[in-house]
Parts: sequence; C-alpha cells; structure tokens
Amino acid sequence: MADAFSFELQHTDGAARAGLIHTPHGMVRTPTFMPVGTQGALKAVHWHEVREAGADIVLGNTYHLMLRPGPERIAALGGLHRFINWPHPILTDSGGFQVMSLAELRKVDENGVVFRSHLDGAIFELTPERAIEIQALLGSDIAMQLDECLRLPAEPAEIARATQLSLRWAERCKRAQEKFSLGAPPGRALFGIVQGGDDKRLRAESARALVEMGFDGYAIGGLAVGESQEVMLAIVEEVMPHLPADKPHYLMGVGTPEDILAAVARGVDMFDCVLPTRNGRHGLAFTRHGPINLKNARHADDSRPLDAESRCAAARDFSRAYLHHLVKANESLGGMLLSLVNLFYYQDLMRGARSAIAAGNFADFSRMTRDGWARGDIAPI
Amino acid sequence: MADAFSFELQHTDGAARAGLIHTPHGMVRTPTFMPVGTQGALKAVHWHEVREAGADIVLGNTYHLMLRPGPERIAALGGLHRFINWPHPILTDSGGFQVMSLAELRKVDENGVVFRSHLDGAIFELTPERAIEIQALLGSDIAMQLDECLRLPAEPAEIARATQLSLRWAERCKRAQEKFSLGAPPGRALFGIVQGGDDKRLRAESARALVEMGFDGYAIGGLAVGESQEVMLAIVEEVMPHLPADKPHYLMGVGTPEDILAAVARGVDMFDCVLPTRNGRHGLAFTRHGPINLKNARHADDSRPLDAESRCAAARDFSRAYLHHLVKANESLGGMLLSLVNLFYYQDLMRGARSAIAAGNFADFSRMTRDGWARGDIAPI
Repeated sequence: MADAFSFELQHTDGAARAGLIHTPHGMVRTPTFMPVGTQGALKAVHWHEVREAGADIVLGNTYHLMLRPGPERIAALGGLHRFINWPHPILTDSGGFQVMSLAELRKVDENGVVFRSHLDGAIFELTPERAIEIQALLGSDIAMQLDECLRLPAEPAEIARATQLSLRWAERCKRAQEKFSLGAPPGRALFGIVQGGDDKRLRAESARALVEMGFDGYAIGGLAVGESQEVMLAIVEEVMPHLPADKPHYLMGVGTPEDILAAVARGVDMFDCVLPTRNGRHGLAFTRHGPINLKNARHADDSRPLDAESRCAAARDFSRAYLHHLVKANESLGGMLLSLVNLFYYQDLMRGARSAIAAGNFADFSRMTRDGWARGDIAPI
Repeated sequence: MADAFSFELQHTDGAARAGLIHTPHGMVRTPTFMPVGTQGALKAVHWHEVREAGADIVLGNTYHLMLRPGPERIAALGGLHRFINWPHPILTDSGGFQVMSLAELRKVDENGVVFRSHLDGAIFELTPERAIEIQALLGSDIAMQLDECLRLPAEPAEIARATQLSLRWAERCKRAQEKFSLGAPPGRALFGIVQGGDDKRLRAESARALVEMGFDGYAIGGLAVGESQEVMLAIVEEVMPHLPADKPHYLMGVGTPEDILAAVARGVDMFDCVLPTRNGRHGLAFTRHGPINLKNARHADDSRPLDAESRCAAARDFSRAYLHHLVKANESLGGMLLSLVNLFYYQDLMRGARSAIAAGNFADFSRMTRDGWARGDIAPI
C-alpha cells in the first residue's frame, strides 16, 4: 500500500532522530517544521514561496476552517489540498486549542465543546466525532484527536480532569477515524495528544494510555502555553521514553529556534509555530546571526543585506535600510519579505539539523548554531 | 550617447501611437502602464512580480519619499533603483499632487509650497528647485516638474492662476534640471505638465507655452480628479494637437482599462494608476470578462479559476471560491493574489494595444476588448 501513512526512522544521534514520514501527498523529512496556514493561507506569503522555502508539510486550523468557509464546502470543492492549491502533505489540528483560546461562551462536558463563533456569535458544537469528521472532510494527511488544552499554570485537579477527558476523547476519535476511513482514500493518519499540564505523573500516564490505544503518531500538547522553557523541556523528557520509537513525535505550537534545537535533541520530530510569519510582520528577522529587529533606527542607513549568503532572495537582495523603511512605513512588502526570510531560516535550520543527525554530529551543529546567534552580526557596516 | 533619454515613435494607427522610450535604465515599450510604488514599494506585491507581470517602468512618489526615508538618505544608499532593488526605469512625480491631497496647512505662493507632513507635523518646503533636486537625489529616469494641481470643479479664475503659476514653475524646474544635471550621469529626462483644469483655452495655452520651453516629454495633469470621462477625453483631445509627435505623452493618474483604451486611441503613450493594486486589495479583479467582485457571495462555491487561460498563475491556479474566502476572511494573500491578477491584466492590455497599433488594427482590438468586458463571464459554472 504505497499510499499508506508510515514513519521510517533513518538515523539517530543520541536522542535526536532523522527520518521520513510517508503520506498520500508525499514525503516529510524529519525533524520538520510546519508553517501555519490558519484560515487556509499563511499571512503575507504565497504558497509557492512556502514550498520554495523548503516546507514539506503545512498545518491547517480546523477551528478557523469549520467557521469559514466550512468543511462541507471545502469537501465539495475537492478538499483542502485543492482548495488552497498545496498538493503536498497537510496536518490539521482538531480545533480544540483555538476553541479554548478564541471562542466565546464555551461549555466543555463529556460530550464535547459547545461554543460561540468569535466571528458572528453562531453556536457550534465540536465533539470528538465531529472533529474527526471535519478533518476527514478537509482531507488532511494527518488528523489530530480532540483534546482539552488548559493554560498553565492550572490547578492539579483541573489538570487531572482535563487529561482524563482528553484520553476518553482520544478513544472516541480513534473509533470515529475508523468509521470515516471506510471507503475513503487510504493512508490518512491520526495522532494522539499527550496532555497532563506540568504534572509529570499525569503526562506519563497519558502517554502510556495513548500508546496502549495505538495511534499513527504522538503529539505533546498543552505546552508553549506560558510555561518556562525549562518546564517544557522537562515534560518532553518525561514523556519521550513512553513513546514508541517507530512513530513520529510532535511537539505542538513550538517554537523559537532555540526551543526547536533543544526539543530535537530530546527526540522530537515535528514542530509548528506562527513565529516565523508573525515576527516577520512585526519587523523581526531570524538569521544565522540571531534575531535582528528591523524597527531599530540603527538600520536606517545600513546598506548591508540581512545575509548575503542566504538561500533566500529577500535576505540577499534588499538592504537593511530598505527593510527598516518598509517596516517603519507599514508597507505590506516589509512583512512579506521578512516572513519569507524567517520561513527560509526555519527550514534551513531543520535541514541543518537533519544533515547533522545523519552525520552523527547534531551536538556540534547545535553548539555552532547557538554560537552564531550569540556572536551576533559583527561584520563591519 | 547610448544612455541618453529619447523617444522613438515606431507605429501610428489613427491617433494611436506605439514606440520606445530609451532611458539610462533600459527601454519602455509604449503605450505603457506604470504601477505605482508609493513609498518605495507596491502594496502587497513583490518587485520581481511587478517585472514578471510585464512592467517596463514604475512610478515613485516624491512626496512620500521626501518625508520618509528622505532623498538624501536614498542618495547615500545608491539611489532609488538600488534602494528598492528595481534596476529598470523609474519615473518620479514632483510631489505637488500629494502635497495638495495629503499634507496639512499647506501654503502656496510664488516661491513654492510650505506644508506640514501628514506623518508627524514637521514643516517642509517644496519649491520647483527642491522638487528637481529631490528627484535628482532619487536618481529617477524621468522627473516631473512641480505644478499646482487643483481639484475639479474649481473657479475659472482659480484655474487660470494655478495654470500660470505652474508655467512659471515649469521654467524654474527646467533651469534647476540643467543645474542638477551638471556632472550627473546623462540621460535623466524632465517632463512638463499641461494644466488648465476643464478650460480648453487655458489647456491649449499651457501646452503651447510648455512646448516653447522644450521638455523631454509632456504630461497632462489635473485630470482624473473627479471630472467625468467625457470631460477628461475632451481635454485630452484639445491638448494633443499642441504636443510634438516626437515626444512621449503622459496622462497622469489614469485610470480604468476603459479610460486607457480611450486615451491610447487619442495619442497618449504613458499611464499610471493605483487601481490595479488598490482594487485588488478590495477584492476586485480585472479580467478579460470585465471586473469580478470576489466579495460577492455568488463566488463562494465556484470552483473555476478567474481565467484559466491567463498568463498569471494567480488567475489560473486558485478557484474563485478560494479567492472569495481569502477576501471575506481578510487574509493578506487575497490582496496579494488579486493585485497580481490586476497588474498582469493591465500589462497584458498594454501589450495587446501595442501589438494592435503595430498591426494597424487598434480600433478592432479596442472593440473586441470592450465586447469581452460587456459579454461578461458566461461560461457555465
């Protein structure tokens, strides 16, 4: 079954892993970073540019797409891949995270979540079964279970309740996935999501229970929600030994380049984050020399490009003075160019990590990368 | 002098003309449409996309660039071409039009205009000499004289006063251009601007006086400022016989595709307008089938592209349903794609006009183009 979903672990280097995820829409080289196309689009970036930057897979947000234009409409138009004209792998989240962060008047009970749309106040219900149905309508290559994602810090009892509820929802999602897979094209994957807040015992319990149910991959959710990097990494370290080596490990919503290096070193294979595009729109460029804030007046007369050796034309072909001007003048081209710079930087970081893991020198790669950030951009103006 | 500015009239077809403008930064095929890069950037479009659309020349706004980042800064960074990374021809306006429409507390007298920046309230003075100096600092290939541009309708006495003042400023601009050309790279051109509001006698007088002074090209200013298309075309018809056939004729700030066809038929060679990008950002696509408003709900389930036969990928590769969704969801990609569609459409319109004039069938081309707009998009959904 050539079209089936599978994960091929190719190299390990300490806990770090490099491999390939096979999906019906093509391969994903891991560790991978997934740009976020919230409402069926990245902000300020063309789809062909996302691909040119090196992305193998992108993330679509079920919450946004269920409200507008609606999953039934997207299905009638041929599915999400065709709708957005991205014929490569797509992962969709379950909608749970955004229901918690964006929707109004949400009510969580055993059955699911009832909430009001933040767009027009219309009432929606999201159950585990509906979350899977929506993702089947979208036709994503990787679907995520519905979970309840708390903000940290939270009360221990509250964390325990949400963790248990998320496990019961995981079971229902798995049954729903089997139902919606009947007669559908083969190979669509479903990932379980480890919850448990900052409670290591609950995290281990959640991971073990999910693995017992058996998913195509395992995500760690409920992190990057306000906790320190130290707490985040401690949870990752706690969870990892419980996850099977032959399945992909996905750390949701992470993160900065530093977060990513640290998590790859601990065995994480997949990441998603809005930082490259959001920070780009706010005038911040990620570079080999560390972040550069183009809003800063010191760039106003700087004729140097961001990085003359970059693979990204936006980093090579425009002066910092011009980028500074665009950012100060609120010209949309500023956000467009800096989002591109950042998407390329993130993809190049992942490519470097993959090569280093294959060569068995990921620790050196991480150290040299961090040294470059710390040294800053010391070339003379 | 290979680098010098010159105009080569190649074909005429009735009053319509096709030719080549030679500039230090390359050739411009006429009739030409110049996209507007207000603050050193087109809105929502990359510079390489402007070129791919087929633009030979773009317009930069002196008013905006003088306020931010400042012409001395751009000169120190190597000039406007290098600053924006557009190595092709650039025309700059004189700043006069935007001083009138955007600045606060402006005071016009014989010497020039004193005004407050709309950005931070700083006081600036724009004289004919300073307008030319700024354009020399920017290094544009074609500079425009400073003029006083009134909104129509206006009192006859007021029109007469502004017209005479603009003529005296034209003389001062010409002397300033000679001064700033000493020792500068050769071939920078200066255009005079015919004013006179809707008064045909004043228009003729203005044109004759400018031609007597002698400019590299002649613009018709003070139109597309609220008058009807009928009035605009009547003024164009009045002015044209007074302009030398061996110099380019530029109708400033025009216009819709229909305005452009009508003006080309009357001997106009150059156009500029923000319509392709502004309308694109507001959800309107210009197509062979006429304008299509993507905001309209009737597109929500329409899987057809805007134009499957377009040279523009944005018009071919995305469904109207997707474009409708992006516009409704305020996704920046919507404005990016539709601005591209429109820039390609405008450039294809100009290319079609040039070919038709060369073949001696511009009237047929115009009629068939208008028929396409009128027939609309009648293909079945």
